[in-house]
Amino acid sequence: MLVLHNYWSSVCSQKARLCLAEKKLPYQNRHVNLFEFEHWTPEYLKINPKAVVPALDHDGRIVIESNVILEYLEDTFPQVRLRPEDPYARSQMRLWIFNSEEIAHENVNTASYNPRHAARHKAKGHTREDLIKIATRCPNPIVRNRLVHRAENGVSEQQENEAYEALDFLLDQLEQALARGPWITGAEYSLADIAMAPFINRIEVLKRPEMVKASRRPRLAEWWQRIQERPAYKEAFSLANPDKSDPVAR
Amino acid sequence: MLVLHNYWSSVCSQKARLCLAEKKLPYQNRHVNLFEFEHWTPEYLKINPKAVVPALDHDGRIVIESNVILEYLEDTFPQVRLRPEDPYARSQMRLWIFNSEEIAHENVNTASYNPRHAARHKAKGHTREDLIKIATRCPNPIVRNRLVHRAENGVSEQQENEAYEALDFLLDQLEQALARGPWITGAEYSLADIAMAPFINRIEVLKRPEMVKASRRPRLAEWWQRIQERPAYKEAFSLANPDKSDPVAR
Repeated sequence: MLVLHNYWSSVCSQKARLCLAEKKLPYQNRHVNLFEFEHWTPEYLKINPKAVVPALDHDGRIVIESNVILEYLEDTFPQVRLRPEDPYARSQMRLWIFNSEEIAHENVNTASYNPRHAARHKAKGHTREDLIKIATRCPNPIVRNRLVHRAENGVSEQQENEAYEALDFLLDQLEQALARGPWITGAEYSLADIAMAPFINRIEVLKRPEMVKASRRPRLAEWWQRIQERPAYKEAFSLANPDKSDPVAR
Repeated sequence: MLVLHNYWSSVCSQKARLCLAEKKLPYQNRHVNLFEFEHWTPEYLKINPKAVVPALDHDGRIVIESNVILEYLEDTFPQVRLRPEDPYARSQMRLWIFNSEEIAHENVNTASYNPRHAARHKAKGHTREDLIKIATRCPNPIVRNRLVHRAENGVSEQQENEAYEALDFLLDQLEQALARGPWITGAEYSLADIAMAPFINRIEVLKRPEMVKASRRPRLAEWWQRIQERPAYKEAFSLANPDKSDPVAR
């Protein structure tokens, strides 16, 4: 049995859900409410000591990190194939899985703080002092220190601008990679497309949607259209938000 | 033909060299002097638009990012096998390859700035103003903005402490993973051991060598001993520094 511990709108959770949907794999969805800090409870830390989502439980064996989950699903359930055979195409697939974490996730996270994360903390009634106190409960010092710094200072305009600058740099490279299209590694839809799709969705709902529009990046915009037309995309992204007090709609 | 564009003491370059040595693959070594900013020249940017090392040229096809290079070498030259067959063991291998970048590289880089990078910039005679001017030549905004911030403010004691805190967190998890030893994924030496080894070497030469000592982490210390005894380790780490003006010895 497959159980996915995840949060409805987390970009890394969306990667895992999209892969499961493409492979038509049934799974139990366990919602971990990040804004109730359920990912820092002793129970969840037994599943994922890094204190982040998603985590995949496959018959009691745990796989963490969305990038690792993608290739684990491919190795374990290859019936729907999402990884090219050619070693060079495979390397390009892995480059984009890597980029999705190194550049896309890191910077989308920074750009999401003010409009999304801080808005949610506020809706939950958490003050600056609450957040700093709550942060001490997180055993992962990277996540803990980041929350403390953000609770203390927010994300500055300069930090936000630098995040969008990094995303622009990445999207330029994606536009170029898509010259070999229709998919990121060429003829075959792959884990690379799955890894990048949630970040395009997120950029579109953030402050600079023009970054993913046809006028700026025509190949990217077409690819993004193709992605959204896939039944698996609709399935993975239609998960209802179980937290009715959440001020973020998408 | 294989050509590796790399810098003698870059941790990510060491990962690629260690993998090539384990697989006994002959290659041409092209030294890219990071402290002469050779990785930002128009020639190198044609090889790697992300403006970092290493980059592998295999018969004219370029593979970038050390984590991607490791699996590319495995897919292309599987004669010396460095990846377990079992999908779960493979996922644990990939988790540690991932951790080597997400946590080890990021934080070792921060901890290396004051004692190593800044010392080299100084030895080259670059002032704060020079560095800020040079940074504008880097097309990768992540690398550029980081150099500007560091030229302006250095790495603070708090940032350094937080980097070591993150590394401690990672090493605790590594100590636990090695319970299944002798290697990171269990019985077989794999790409996971290759990905982590350069960071243990670096932590040992930085300010807190006790972090990798037997008194603190006995399994880690034994594993680290086993790693250093391998002929491939000796080969990959014995590359002479071609820059005689470099103040960093190891």
